[in-house]
Amino acid sequence: MNNTMKHNFTFIIKGDFCYSASKKELAARENHFLICINGICAGIFENIPMQYRHIPVTDYSGHLILPGLTDLHTHAPQYSFRGMGMDLELLDWLNTHTFPEESRYEDLAYARNAYRRFTDDMIHGPSTRACIFATRHVTATLLLMDMLEASGLITKVGKVNMDRNCPFPLCEADFNTSLSDTQLWLEASKKQKRCLPILTPRFIPSCSDPLMKGLADLQKNTGLPVQSHLSENLSEIEWVQELCPDSRFYGEAYYNYHLFGGETCPTIMAHCVHSSPEEIELLKSQNVWVAHCPQSNTNLSSGIAPVRRYLDQDLRIGLGSDIAGGTCGSIFRAMTDAIQVSKLYWRLIDTDAVPVTVEEAFWMGTAGGGTFFGKTGSFLPGWDADILVMDESRFPNTSPLTLRQRLERVIYLSEDRDILHKFVAGRQLF
Amino acid sequence: MNNTMKHNFTFIIKGDFCYSASKKELAARENHFLICINGICAGIFENIPMQYRHIPVTDYSGHLILPGLTDLHTHAPQYSFRGMGMDLELLDWLNTHTFPEESRYEDLAYARNAYRRFTDDMIHGPSTRACIFATRHVTATLLLMDMLEASGLITKVGKVNMDRNCPFPLCEADFNTSLSDTQLWLEASKKQKRCLPILTPRFIPSCSDPLMKGLADLQKNTGLPVQSHLSENLSEIEWVQELCPDSRFYGEAYYNYHLFGGETCPTIMAHCVHSSPEEIELLKSQNVWVAHCPQSNTNLSSGIAPVRRYLDQDLRIGLGSDIAGGTCGSIFRAMTDAIQVSKLYWRLIDTDAVPVTVEEAFWMGTAGGGTFFGKTGSFLPGWDADILVMDESRFPNTSPLTLRQRLERVIYLSEDRDILHKFVAGRQLF
Repeated sequence: MNNTMKHNFTFIIKGDFCYSASKKELAARENHFLICINGICAGIFENIPMQYRHIPVTDYSGHLILPGLTDLHTHAPQYSFRGMGMDLELLDWLNTHTFPEESRYEDLAYARNAYRRFTDDMIHGPSTRACIFATRHVTATLLLMDMLEASGLITKVGKVNMDRNCPFPLCEADFNTSLSDTQLWLEASKKQKRCLPILTPRFIPSCSDPLMKGLADLQKNTGLPVQSHLSENLSEIEWVQELCPDSRFYGEAYYNYHLFGGETCPTIMAHCVHSSPEEIELLKSQNVWVAHCPQSNTNLSSGIAPVRRYLDQDLRIGLGSDIAGGTCGSIFRAMTDAIQVSKLYWRLIDTDAVPVTVEEAFWMGTAGGGTFFGKTGSFLPGWDADILVMDESRFPNTSPLTLRQRLERVIYLSEDRDILHKFVAGRQLF
Repeated sequence: MNNTMKHNFTFIIKGDFCYSASKKELAARENHFLICINGICAGIFENIPMQYRHIPVTDYSGHLILPGLTDLHTHAPQYSFRGMGMDLELLDWLNTHTFPEESRYEDLAYARNAYRRFTDDMIHGPSTRACIFATRHVTATLLLMDMLEASGLITKVGKVNMDRNCPFPLCEADFNTSLSDTQLWLEASKKQKRCLPILTPRFIPSCSDPLMKGLADLQKNTGLPVQSHLSENLSEIEWVQELCPDSRFYGEAYYNYHLFGGETCPTIMAHCVHSSPEEIELLKSQNVWVAHCPQSNTNLSSGIAPVRRYLDQDLRIGLGSDIAGGTCGSIFRAMTDAIQVSKLYWRLIDTDAVPVTVEEAFWMGTAGGGTFFGKTGSFLPGWDADILVMDESRFPNTSPLTLRQRLERVIYLSEDRDILHKFVAGRQLF
């Protein structure tokens, strides 16, 4: 499909729509029409308004139609080894599995094969948007970006910066090399339209002081967004405290480098499992997006993030698969994981922290994370037409169900193969 | 396939085998031969021993081959509404969703449709054995048993007994009706060969004193096995304490009725999330099988069962999907859920309770639960030839993997459609 043929992205579809009207409120519209004009949702109507009656209608009657999901945190080079080494905690797991595997992306043939699988599976999964860590390698990262650009998905990809505390040859030679490689990568990725760069210091322990300062300068000059990791694991937090004795807490270390949100630096911090009240306050005041990755936090025995608090304090928050700390790339699964761990948090840690509801989990996986890309993740007028047409025939109902019940079943039971059609900003991928 | 054609169940297959040699020890045999004689595994060999060289060999080289899994606890009539109402706790969930749905199994057309789906999906899932709750309805239960008998799976099914504390019309009229219906059901199920009856008092709150006494007499006279629920939820436990003031704990109530294990009464108790040390001691001394249902215990906010303790104290323990408290019927998923909740238990409740390993989770899902059916769930000589031939092509490796690594990936990543072939006691289902 030609990217310039904008008129292709104008259409009407009929079906049963569920989307978040707000964080706590689900909109459910049975047998309605979604009007998509140039990739933007003009609204959902019971009858097609007069001014749109010339637009062709595709009939998906009986199908549940949902906004595309956003994976706010994942690692493309870890996709190839997902589901292995799950008996380890974060720092051991990084050294045993992740770092050796990521070293292989120096080899372009290896990278092409592995990234092809990642991209193909992402095309067929429920996410229409994703924020992705690549590796520190410029060429392999550009290759991944080319594949994602061609996929039709809208993504942000980061060449990873890491110049200390990780093994050769994955460690970058020094901060200058890391920064000049980053410049090279940014220059080469200027041609991209749908897969854009995002600055990606891996995490404080693997980024030296001058590297962080250089990245902050770069961020200031380019206005690029930032993604990193925060307060995932207790040993990691202790380590950061040693590395940054002048910061009162982990998040403040990023803040002191000017890489922690604010008006001109849109930022995602993955995990935030053990964030202190001060850190939560800073996340909120800096408008940082929290990428909640419940499956990964369980697999790596990190703990359970206090998501009830984040929701109630109106933090920006979305969901991440965190492949390969998480083993499943689907954000539907992340929604159920988020609900499930919040129930255990409620039962085992804090009886005041009522569990995450279906509405809230759905919101986090759609608009909660999607707004990092703008107006994405809902069917409100003016929002991007990211659309999933679901096939529920593998789990048929034996009694009439409400749309809300059908949505809950799709969240809990659907697999990638149950997605019948997928649109990204009006562009049909399949 | 004709059940009497025993010679069909003699064959050799070649491939890559993983199975539990013991609870903590995985046997991994690459490029070996499994000899199946009349449905029984004669062993796994690097070369085919002379005496077996006349037997035809099927070559599944490159495929991971595993013992069939056992679902030690599930509810067939709840399959149709799995993935709904997950915002409730046990007793509310029973009243809002489960009891109204189970009432519908009075209607045979409804039951046929719903049980057909349950049975079809079970055929194509990884379990070769299952212990299943039906409803209180005799005819619908027999219908389910006919379907399961024809499926080739080996199962135990219980007509449920429940004569108090549940809504009309699901509640049985009185204990006499419940017992005479049970007699009717047992008489009619005598023709079954692979799908056998198991006595199924729902749980203490829904069974009156005379009903439990009658069931105990029936058990004594028939030697039939028993399945029920134990210590799933704190409100339930409190309720049982009120109902049975003479029992010191929930398990003792079953014990006092003579329906709690021992040499002549093989028993499964599902959940055991909140079992006291005394209850655990009784579970052990009575050789009761614990059906650990981690997904259900999370979904219904019941808590996390102390599985490390059960494993270390050598209790009999297997895994259950507990549809529809659990939403996923696959015992592979139950293995990962068991590992995951054990990590949270370790991190949040008891730092001495080291997480369940892949080996232990695999053992629970195969031999741990399988031994309720005899020698089932391993490829040791003399054990039943319940076999899954897996297709790993949906998650190809980019580097050479050990069999143990491939097993971990199959456990975390496989879906039902990744099962290429399935044998139950030597009988090929597909």
